[in-house]
Amino acid sequence: MSILVVGSVALDYLETPYGVREKALGGSATFISIAARYLAPDVRFVGIVGGDFPQAHIDDLTARGIDLLGLERVPDGRTFSWGGRYHEDMNHRDTLYTELGVFAQFNPAIPDAWRRSDIVVLGNIHPSLQSHVLDQMEQPGVVICDTMNLWIDTSREALLDTIRRVDVLILNDQEARQLTGERNTVAAGRRLLDAGPSRVVVKKGEHGAMLLSRDGVFFAPAYPLDALKDPTGAGDTFAGGFAGALAASPARDDEAFRRAVVYGSVLASFCVEQFGVEGVAELDAERIAGRYRAFVEMVRYTP
Amino acid sequence: MSILVVGSVALDYLETPYGVREKALGGSATFISIAARYLAPDVRFVGIVGGDFPQAHIDDLTARGIDLLGLERVPDGRTFSWGGRYHEDMNHRDTLYTELGVFAQFNPAIPDAWRRSDIVVLGNIHPSLQSHVLDQMEQPGVVICDTMNLWIDTSREALLDTIRRVDVLILNDQEARQLTGERNTVAAGRRLLDAGPSRVVVKKGEHGAMLLSRDGVFFAPAYPLDALKDPTGAGDTFAGGFAGALAASPARDDEAFRRAVVYGSVLASFCVEQFGVEGVAELDAERIAGRYRAFVEMVRYTP
Repeated sequence: MSILVVGSVALDYLETPYGVREKALGGSATFISIAARYLAPDVRFVGIVGGDFPQAHIDDLTARGIDLLGLERVPDGRTFSWGGRYHEDMNHRDTLYTELGVFAQFNPAIPDAWRRSDIVVLGNIHPSLQSHVLDQMEQPGVVICDTMNLWIDTSREALLDTIRRVDVLILNDQEARQLTGERNTVAAGRRLLDAGPSRVVVKKGEHGAMLLSRDGVFFAPAYPLDALKDPTGAGDTFAGGFAGALAASPARDDEAFRRAVVYGSVLASFCVEQFGVEGVAELDAERIAGRYRAFVEMVRYTP
Repeated sequence: MSILVVGSVALDYLETPYGVREKALGGSATFISIAARYLAPDVRFVGIVGGDFPQAHIDDLTARGIDLLGLERVPDGRTFSWGGRYHEDMNHRDTLYTELGVFAQFNPAIPDAWRRSDIVVLGNIHPSLQSHVLDQMEQPGVVICDTMNLWIDTSREALLDTIRRVDVLILNDQEARQLTGERNTVAAGRRLLDAGPSRVVVKKGEHGAMLLSRDGVFFAPAYPLDALKDPTGAGDTFAGGFAGALAASPARDDEAFRRAVVYGSVLASFCVEQFGVEGVAELDAERIAGRYRAFVEMVRYTP
């Protein structure tokens, strides 16, 4: 089953109490694709980079079997770059700078051969661009949408227009509260179910993730890490693992989405253990299966 | 199997965005006993009240089958009273006043017939009093200890002495961080395992509860309530449900403690739906079993 991924590609500056990385490969499409590719063979990448984007990253993504047909390269432009600093408790970060570069002119064009992708993951980009992607698709099976506080602040109506058209909305607890005005996370999630999506995933960082739908509420804990090194990309990685798990099986019942939440949590748990994409760069089926078993064990009991 | 409960008895002033209650029956021993009694027949209550304590409350607790042989009454004293105000987000509360009354002279004397209780629940009282209770016990099967930030601040050494002697330490995430100096909840929980208890339960409010032991980590979510009316007593109620579940079965393996965490969560979920003890006052086996099934359903998936 095929997964179309649309999002940002970035060279990031990352600073946490554990260290610093400059020009680290990042961006929502990058994390989503790398994570999804571990679970699904056909991952289609749509993004934009400048002439400064290292060929080594292109080669690496290609070697992973990610199809870069949709990667636009602008030789005389600069790749999107975000600089962020995380503080001691890792729950708060300061954006040091945002240099849009070629990302400012991103107008995702979906290759004809990809208009019939089974699963579409709309990474965190302007909601109008997300809608523009959907305009180009022919009957996608499942549309998964991520977003961020910036668009809730600046482009609420466009975002609500996009949300109406998606099957699964993934956002964090703070965003869910911000978008709905509900303080209570569960109440916020339920309100979002009325806005279009048949399923809403509320990510709660160290407190795990919650899946809401008409079938009920499902909780998956986060992996109990003594320390996380860098939360950057964890949400995108979650979305990638989620989409990958759906692509790996034809089932579309509540069970399938519950398993997808666990796979998203599994992949995200690897992500935060290292800087940038380093935590998800060297995985294999065995390590993923091992941690999946650990997730099963964390909630298991005989009623 | 018998449960000995030692803790405070109070007439509380409660104020939340949902309303106000004056002279509401409260106190750790009260919540623990009421919750435990739904799951176990033999609940033994040790506490102290003043002459102002309404006979109706005595009658009610007695009618529930809670044995009040250990309830000391001081006719010319006043019952402990706590006044608290919860704000919009319910995660923060202001203590309006604390009138110790007869609680200042509480020196729990365990009736001879109760020195061989199977399970001991040390409700939130001064850690020296908790130790004094343990000094009077003969080989209790399981000792469960709750505490609060006040004792971590003012009586850390006495608290650590008590903790060394207990089997299960129950505390909230903030207390776990405060007691260990570890920011990370999981790391804090693991540190506490080195301080004496074989199991540590970290309560995370709306984010559920975590059980740590040498057998691994277990997570139980909180029940997804759209709104909670009054969090007072939720932690005590959790401890009561936890103890009650253990008393209802002879098993002392990891499975038994996992189920106990879920029962604690079930009882606590009823507690916060109403003011004070109102939420746990009118339960029955069927409602508890129904919500227990809902908890099972919230984390269930086929790997």
